[in-house]
Amino acid sequence: MKLSAFASSFVFDPRKPRFRDYRTLLDDEDEELPGLEASLEQIGEYQRRLWANRARAVLLVAHGPDTSGKDSLIRTLATYADPAGFHAWSFSRPQGAETRHDFLWRVTPFLPGFGEMVVFNRSHHEAVIAERVWPVHEPESYNWKNRYQSIRNFESHLVEEGTTLIKVWLNLSEDEHSQRLLKRLDKPRKRWKFDKSDIDGWNKRHQYQEFAEEAMAATHTEEAPWFIVPGDRKSQARAIVAAILAEQLQHLAPEYPKEDEGVLKEYRRLLAKNGVK
Amino acid sequence: MKLSAFASSFVFDPRKPRFRDYRTLLDDEDEELPGLEASLEQIGEYQRRLWANRARAVLLVAHGPDTSGKDSLIRTLATYADPAGFHAWSFSRPQGAETRHDFLWRVTPFLPGFGEMVVFNRSHHEAVIAERVWPVHEPESYNWKNRYQSIRNFESHLVEEGTTLIKVWLNLSEDEHSQRLLKRLDKPRKRWKFDKSDIDGWNKRHQYQEFAEEAMAATHTEEAPWFIVPGDRKSQARAIVAAILAEQLQHLAPEYPKEDEGVLKEYRRLLAKNGVK
Repeated sequence: MKLSAFASSFVFDPRKPRFRDYRTLLDDEDEELPGLEASLEQIGEYQRRLWANRARAVLLVAHGPDTSGKDSLIRTLATYADPAGFHAWSFSRPQGAETRHDFLWRVTPFLPGFGEMVVFNRSHHEAVIAERVWPVHEPESYNWKNRYQSIRNFESHLVEEGTTLIKVWLNLSEDEHSQRLLKRLDKPRKRWKFDKSDIDGWNKRHQYQEFAEEAMAATHTEEAPWFIVPGDRKSQARAIVAAILAEQLQHLAPEYPKEDEGVLKEYRRLLAKNGVK
Repeated sequence: MKLSAFASSFVFDPRKPRFRDYRTLLDDEDEELPGLEASLEQIGEYQRRLWANRARAVLLVAHGPDTSGKDSLIRTLATYADPAGFHAWSFSRPQGAETRHDFLWRVTPFLPGFGEMVVFNRSHHEAVIAERVWPVHEPESYNWKNRYQSIRNFESHLVEEGTTLIKVWLNLSEDEHSQRLLKRLDKPRKRWKFDKSDIDGWNKRHQYQEFAEEAMAATHTEEAPWFIVPGDRKSQARAIVAAILAEQLQHLAPEYPKEDEGVLKEYRRLLAKNGVK
């Protein structure tokens, strides 16, 4: 996966995996960011070509603590996408049948097919982050190292088989996290998203971040890298993720399928012969 | 299902099921149409409430001949939808495992769950329309009357279990159909959609329409009605379908979940106690 200078400045660095205070905000308010609108238009255009071609799949995995803006990020990325080939899926705490299968089982039906672009709102990585804070099974039944290996193998397999995989973490400062929790209670359009478990999430935020750092260090690979995006200013976070996604699509460079001019001519002749003028 | 005067003017009339020449265009160019933008905003707003509530499902089934504008219609309807709860799925000629199951089998995994709005680009109705023109099995193995009954029972079951079901047919004149086939060959962005089978589709258009009329007459029910939308002018067709969908959502009237003020107060107290200020 080729990375431009812009995208690579957000790539997770496993040598200094502590990102609790890591670029929560870009230092300089005026630091030049690629225009959001231009990136979204590029994403829309490439997504249509991807869909026309049916040759490659794209999966963007979005993670981050509660209130980090994953939902609104996904809405933004979808702005110019064709819903025929663009799908978003959310994964929360495993329930029912999900808990009775290996942890990759529940995401596989939702993976992008060739031609599709899919965004996961949380993903199989929950099995090595949230599940460590709030275990689904007996804690002694987990072997995290094996799970890391499973994830690396799974993602390597997907990339090998034709999926472009981008993993982003929306980083949030504690101040902003707390302000957003309070706001959720004030707005009728946001209130339904508040869940009592958000309070537990807040209390265990340090533990959650630590597990996330460990998981990212263990699952950050060249073919499926993690990007750490400063999330305190939503518009900034969206512009960054959109730019990263647009750049990756640019490297992929999907084109509309080319037709042989001879074939087109033959089609026109056939249509005319059948009364289409 | 309540219908406004506007929507009901497009309801299929099974007593005169010939729609080949049926309102291909609205008679009067200036006939007042509800504004597209207003309808799309309403759809977006209701779809978000539907998703917040997770109490009802909405399924819009879009049919019509090749080039009738189903894809662009679906893109338009999605304009303000939240991709987390909005999905579009396309069904073409059954292939592989799809041909080895009953004809409803392949659509069921894609039905909307509670909270979701789904649009089908073609659907289980292909089994009583296209499949009559281009049989998948030995022609003598089909019993259309049984299939109509299966569809009525299936759709009645879905409505009974909490799905609002709207079926639209984009009607196309022969002139416009032929013009669009030619255009598909001229535009690089459209060319990939052209398939040799489009020529066969054109040749068998009368048969296709006849089977569609019969199928609609047999599967038009009060709880899952068909709407016939004049499709020659794409912008008009989109405005009509958007208005019909917006009206149905208005009758459904999803609201954001209400919270007990006492519960909200308790949440605020808990957050404060946990250091969120």
